[in-house]
Amino acid sequence: MLKSNYKKILISSGDPHGIGVEIILKGVNKDQYPEILVIGSKKVFDFYKDILKLNVSINYITNIDEIDSRFDTQSLNVIDLPYDKDIELGSISKCAGELSLRCIDTAIHLIKEGFSSTLVTAPVSKEAIIMSNSSFIGHTEYLAQAFNVNRVTMLLLSYIMKVALITTHIAINKVNQLINKESVLTTLQHCNDFLKKMGVTNGKIAVCGLNPHAGEGGNFGDEENRFIIPAIKKAKKSNINVFGPYPSDTLFCQVKNGDYDLYVAMYHDQGLIPFKLLSFGKGVNMTLGLPFSRISVDHGTAFNIAGKGIAKGGSMKETLNWAFKLRESLTISN
Amino acid sequence: MLKSNYKKILISSGDPHGIGVEIILKGVNKDQYPEILVIGSKKVFDFYKDILKLNVSINYITNIDEIDSRFDTQSLNVIDLPYDKDIELGSISKCAGELSLRCIDTAIHLIKEGFSSTLVTAPVSKEAIIMSNSSFIGHTEYLAQAFNVNRVTMLLLSYIMKVALITTHIAINKVNQLINKESVLTTLQHCNDFLKKMGVTNGKIAVCGLNPHAGEGGNFGDEENRFIIPAIKKAKKSNINVFGPYPSDTLFCQVKNGDYDLYVAMYHDQGLIPFKLLSFGKGVNMTLGLPFSRISVDHGTAFNIAGKGIAKGGSMKETLNWAFKLRESLTISN
Repeated sequence: MLKSNYKKILISSGDPHGIGVEIILKGVNKDQYPEILVIGSKKVFDFYKDILKLNVSINYITNIDEIDSRFDTQSLNVIDLPYDKDIELGSISKCAGELSLRCIDTAIHLIKEGFSSTLVTAPVSKEAIIMSNSSFIGHTEYLAQAFNVNRVTMLLLSYIMKVALITTHIAINKVNQLINKESVLTTLQHCNDFLKKMGVTNGKIAVCGLNPHAGEGGNFGDEENRFIIPAIKKAKKSNINVFGPYPSDTLFCQVKNGDYDLYVAMYHDQGLIPFKLLSFGKGVNMTLGLPFSRISVDHGTAFNIAGKGIAKGGSMKETLNWAFKLRESLTISN
Repeated sequence: MLKSNYKKILISSGDPHGIGVEIILKGVNKDQYPEILVIGSKKVFDFYKDILKLNVSINYITNIDEIDSRFDTQSLNVIDLPYDKDIELGSISKCAGELSLRCIDTAIHLIKEGFSSTLVTAPVSKEAIIMSNSSFIGHTEYLAQAFNVNRVTMLLLSYIMKVALITTHIAINKVNQLINKESVLTTLQHCNDFLKKMGVTNGKIAVCGLNPHAGEGGNFGDEENRFIIPAIKKAKKSNINVFGPYPSDTLFCQVKNGDYDLYVAMYHDQGLIPFKLLSFGKGVNMTLGLPFSRISVDHGTAFNIAGKGIAKGGSMKETLNWAFKLRESLTISN
């Protein structure tokens, strides 16, 4: 029954005390209503609609078995997860964390049921979720576990550039411990699969070195020689069109020439500095390696401005643009 | 006697097998001749002038005691260091290294004699110099030793931005070992002194964190809490107008707003990625902490294109523009 809606784009609405619901209310266009299904709570949506005085028509669906029959193409369709707590703007709370997690769990269920292949996630508070589930490590890790995926890849996307990260939120002095042939190779495979699915045939991927001057032949660090170069060689044997490793300070100057379809950075700031500089706030964040397409807005819960009406829907609009673009090309593989 | 030329700008011509002499011949404007003194070798200059068919009038001075009397304001003045070897384009050789080092030594001598407070250095080959002097560590380190300076700071300068580095050419996994309160504080002092000398009063300095999200309160690394924040606090007490540490990926988005006069990065690529992206090849490299102003071109010996006539003088022109700009504001303090 749910299969009829296979191509809907899911949005999990994130932490109810953050700006998630506000950016959904502001960021979804009416003409996208027929294609979108939001997962959240009536109580929370009504609260924000009211205090922000937003004139959005919402259709609540309480039973996920009735999505098909209850779906209203003239409204924003929200699966209503029961929630009876007060909304405490900007507060990190166990109840808010628990609702955030139920949103994610519902999304996982719907994806596993074959209902959707595209999930847009609004920001959650890791601290709030941990209050209700101490084993929670992170939003992305939770999704990976749910689909038995060992390693995922964070990809930052804009119309200017695409950059994937080998390592993400770890201290600089631990980065090199996570650079190995397998981690680089898996990332390259994820990136190549992504480009293929996006219709880029023989997409060109450029890889940064870890160290300054890409190690300068081993003078400043040997990770290039020990891990990165062997991984690139192996990837080439699998017909991945990959180049490098290059010194990252000069490599990113190539972006404006469009020389490469995708860049691979070894650590967070190496990829994020050029991405943010060149994408001018128009970036979104995608998780590769999952059996569906997961895209997030490029910001956090922004508790400090929750409910003030000043959160902009731009990042959600951008994320949805990418979700629609990706939806056609990515398929459920589980 | 030499004091009369106190304000001359010195150029050491670097490795004779690289592009140093070519970029000097192409990069120095005739109207700068009265203010510039090049240190090199007649043999090398005549060689490149000939093969590159460059119509440059050169006045060679063989005795440094005769600089004043022999100086010709209508020509490019070159102190001729004897050299009887053949020029082997692009080759790393002991003789070339030895000549490079004599150029630097002559520059050091002239600066110590009070002849100049501004040194522009063309690129040398570290490997070539090591062939003749095994204790040579690097161009900058050699200059620092000669003036008994323990710690210098690498500053990248363009008309778009200025960024200083706490660490330079070391492996990423060793960076954190060199981040400490003293290294950060000394860099901040060098930067503040530089801004003052440039006439920027109460110049605003922004400091990057070492780790992603500047460590996110200690979640990803503790160098911010242990070293960077204490150094910033101490610098503030000395009336240095310093801010941070900030996540580097968002900090550099401030450059276009002109919010800060100078940025401090913790490691090479953190500073060089935004610098190269934003400065569009117009950058130069300055060494702070020396008792004179030292500026280098923003590239190496480029052995692969030596003598081919395709090296551009742009970086030398840019470097000289900065040298002239800095000359008036910086003074010898030794």
